[in-house]
Amino acid sequence: MDKALILFAHGARAPGWAAPFQRLRELTAARRPDVTVSLAFLELMTPSLPDEVAGLVARGVREVTVVPVFLGQGGHLLRDLPQLLEGLHTAYPGVAFTTVAAVGEDPGVLAAMAEYCLSALGATV
Amino acid sequence: MDKALILFAHGARAPGWAAPFQRLRELTAARRPDVTVSLAFLELMTPSLPDEVAGLVARGVREVTVVPVFLGQGGHLLRDLPQLLEGLHTAYPGVAFTTVAAVGEDPGVLAAMAEYCLSALGATV
Repeated sequence: MDKALILFAHGARAPGWAAPFQRLRELTAARRPDVTVSLAFLELMTPSLPDEVAGLVARGVREVTVVPVFLGQGGHLLRDLPQLLEGLHTAYPGVAFTTVAAVGEDPGVLAAMAEYCLSALGATV
Repeated sequence: MDKALILFAHGARAPGWAAPFQRLRELTAARRPDVTVSLAFLELMTPSLPDEVAGLVARGVREVTVVPVFLGQGGHLLRDLPQLLEGLHTAYPGVAFTTVAAVGEDPGVLAAMAEYCLSALGATV
């Protein structure tokens, strides 16, 4: 497979934090068996984005799409991710990198979150 | 209105970070005009959860549902939010507080995020 999709998330100290991201990776990978779908983290969890890209490129990947699995676009996406991508462009001039807006900016994701918020009004934990 | 829904988010330094949360609030409020829907933040943005609850209670709210608008359940939801809710229970014994799992744990939200990830494979920014 020469194409990869990296789901790029923040990372956290609690190991269970990554569970929804792992489910998201599985859901996405199941729909596109022709693409390598993997996770990478900004901090506190591994692999980092550069480490994940290094492994993919070593396996022959030449097209990498990075989806920021963040709700808001703050400093991590305005500064940290562009810097990481600039470093990757320089390190791998033969690889095409693409990125998109954070998942939280997507109208479909917002609509699903609104449904969940509404359902919470009838639920208790 | 004696019922409120608080969308509880992390907060960030970049003011634009809150934009999706504001849209989420509007989407949710439009569907439940009988409920006060507001935002509250853990840090870096205002209002805090205690400040927002104080205002709501002063306006007569007696039922508060808190939805954590977080993707993963890390320390903020495992420790910080329960501590905040415990303080609120103590401060307002006449108010019923309810909370639910993080939005990122919801299957509908995960499915919408997977769709977005898949669509990114055909998009460029």
